[in-house]
Amino acid sequence: MMLSSRALRYEAGQLLILDQQLLPHEQMWILIENPEQMISVIQALKVRGAPLIGVAAVLSLADWYVKQKPSRADFLKKAEAMRAARPTAINLMNAVDRLTSCSESAIWQTALDIFYEDVELCEQMSLCASEHIADGDGVLTHCNTGGLATVGVGTALGAIQKAWQQGKKIHVYVDETRPLLQGARLTAWELEQMGIPHTLICDNMAGVLMSQGKIQKAFVGTDRIALNGDFANKVGTYSVAVLCHYHKIPFYVVSPSTTVDAHCATGQDIPIEERKDFEVRGVEGSFGSVQWASQGSPVFNPAFDVTPVDLVSGIVIDNISYSQTTLKSGILKEKFKR
Amino acid sequence: MMLSSRALRYEAGQLLILDQQLLPHEQMWILIENPEQMISVIQALKVRGAPLIGVAAVLSLADWYVKQKPSRADFLKKAEAMRAARPTAINLMNAVDRLTSCSESAIWQTALDIFYEDVELCEQMSLCASEHIADGDGVLTHCNTGGLATVGVGTALGAIQKAWQQGKKIHVYVDETRPLLQGARLTAWELEQMGIPHTLICDNMAGVLMSQGKIQKAFVGTDRIALNGDFANKVGTYSVAVLCHYHKIPFYVVSPSTTVDAHCATGQDIPIEERKDFEVRGVEGSFGSVQWASQGSPVFNPAFDVTPVDLVSGIVIDNISYSQTTLKSGILKEKFKR
Repeated sequence: MMLSSRALRYEAGQLLILDQQLLPHEQMWILIENPEQMISVIQALKVRGAPLIGVAAVLSLADWYVKQKPSRADFLKKAEAMRAARPTAINLMNAVDRLTSCSESAIWQTALDIFYEDVELCEQMSLCASEHIADGDGVLTHCNTGGLATVGVGTALGAIQKAWQQGKKIHVYVDETRPLLQGARLTAWELEQMGIPHTLICDNMAGVLMSQGKIQKAFVGTDRIALNGDFANKVGTYSVAVLCHYHKIPFYVVSPSTTVDAHCATGQDIPIEERKDFEVRGVEGSFGSVQWASQGSPVFNPAFDVTPVDLVSGIVIDNISYSQTTLKSGILKEKFKR
Repeated sequence: MMLSSRALRYEAGQLLILDQQLLPHEQMWILIENPEQMISVIQALKVRGAPLIGVAAVLSLADWYVKQKPSRADFLKKAEAMRAARPTAINLMNAVDRLTSCSESAIWQTALDIFYEDVELCEQMSLCASEHIADGDGVLTHCNTGGLATVGVGTALGAIQKAWQQGKKIHVYVDETRPLLQGARLTAWELEQMGIPHTLICDNMAGVLMSQGKIQKAFVGTDRIALNGDFANKVGTYSVAVLCHYHKIPFYVVSPSTTVDAHCATGQDIPIEERKDFEVRGVEGSFGSVQWASQGSPVFNPAFDVTPVDLVSGIVIDNISYSQTTLKSGILKEKFKR
């Protein structure tokens, strides 16, 4: 039994995750021996990316279940704690719910299914979304949505990779994505490894690039999609969407169906995680730690923001591309509402 | 003969500038003994802020002229080098041109005049612009435009300070202003010193605050105003203007007349300085130095961007507030064209 992806492995009966806080300077794998450890690395953002969090969470629970054979009550208690590790990405809740609602004998197989499904869904959505990318496009992306955010080829960055592999000459503009710099640390690094031409920018430079005609499309992932087509993603996504709207640049979201929240009617129902002040007053990572603002500066630090469906050109979910019009017709409600 | 402002002093025959690269962690004054030193501290951004750069440049030239009595040719050569220290802020060129076009006996007095005029113009524009701020407003600002950017009370931040002193209960949202973090390091610190309620945010968080109704006005300064009302300012200003436009939030520019470029017909004529890659791949300052992105990441790093007059609600120049309609009628061309 072996599973392998860019940031998660299961081999010789051991679950390993790549510490993404150390990238791109160091590549260190962490052995996860129990669900508490997984919760802790998820909270510390060593594991991040909505689809990857879901897969990592259930593999950790299932691995522990198979090895420790806890009582049903203990299993459900651990699952509940895992489910609450972070509040915004719904993949976590959706994946844990699948594990707690299957029969006990199917727990390990269900976790495996979730892993393989993510790989397969990444393939599907990347291929489907790549059709929106044309030869010669400048493509803006925000945060990290590649092989590090999933166990497959990625979501938005997967689509970019597929377009490149199809021979389309593209140039990717990478928002650094303050405060935690997933764009600068992870996306730029993944693009470098794949040999795809790219330029790293500060988040506030996307507008001027658009005004200069350098950007033809924007692609992002998502942490939760509401039934009306509103979606949450890394803070700053909303601003990118507004800038695209003003410049008439198509703005696409790429996501597996595991990111749809059957219980959220609109984006207003999506809880937004707020994080610590020091993340905005400075930076901290394997590259070092500095605080440039005064300790007396009050801070606002939402990890995500919500973009309304009105600003979306389309959302690719698995193998289907839904236009804004289709989304507004209520198709997600029809398809996903439980 | 003594001059005193928050970041520039002239006392006992010595010109001193506050090293703004060290703020807010350290307050260190640097003695400027000749124009070469001033050019070097301007290029290193130890002196920054368009109006302050202009004043500092001419005081340094005039001080050297009075003490060294160089030939006219040598003086003009030094002035020319000073004029070219940074390419975007026109105050530098305008101030140096005044010094080289006055009679030799008037050089020192002209430099003093430029200092006192900046103090007076700051008073005028701050008061005038403060009328656009209402009790209870959330006010967004970008970069630093206070007493550190001028020798007076400041431009945009001066208006905010006046509004606060008028008893208006305002809350200021401060864009950190990547890559050089003038908002986080300087503006938040100035607001803290003045006791004005404020919140520091990453640049990509302004959009979500607007969507939540937290921001009623945006105020920025400028490094150069073209005759059609387009203007250049710190990179990211254009994005703020687009976000304001989308959310129907009034967006104001506050500036002394010394920032108008009589030779620029439109924003397209404004040269934009591009700076070093390492500024985007990480940060460097008195707080420490870290590089988080791969050295292999190509970077785009314009220090400024241009906002077209169509996105401007008004520009306050000295004691007059020009609406977009007035600006578009060609009033600046009429008033300033030489």
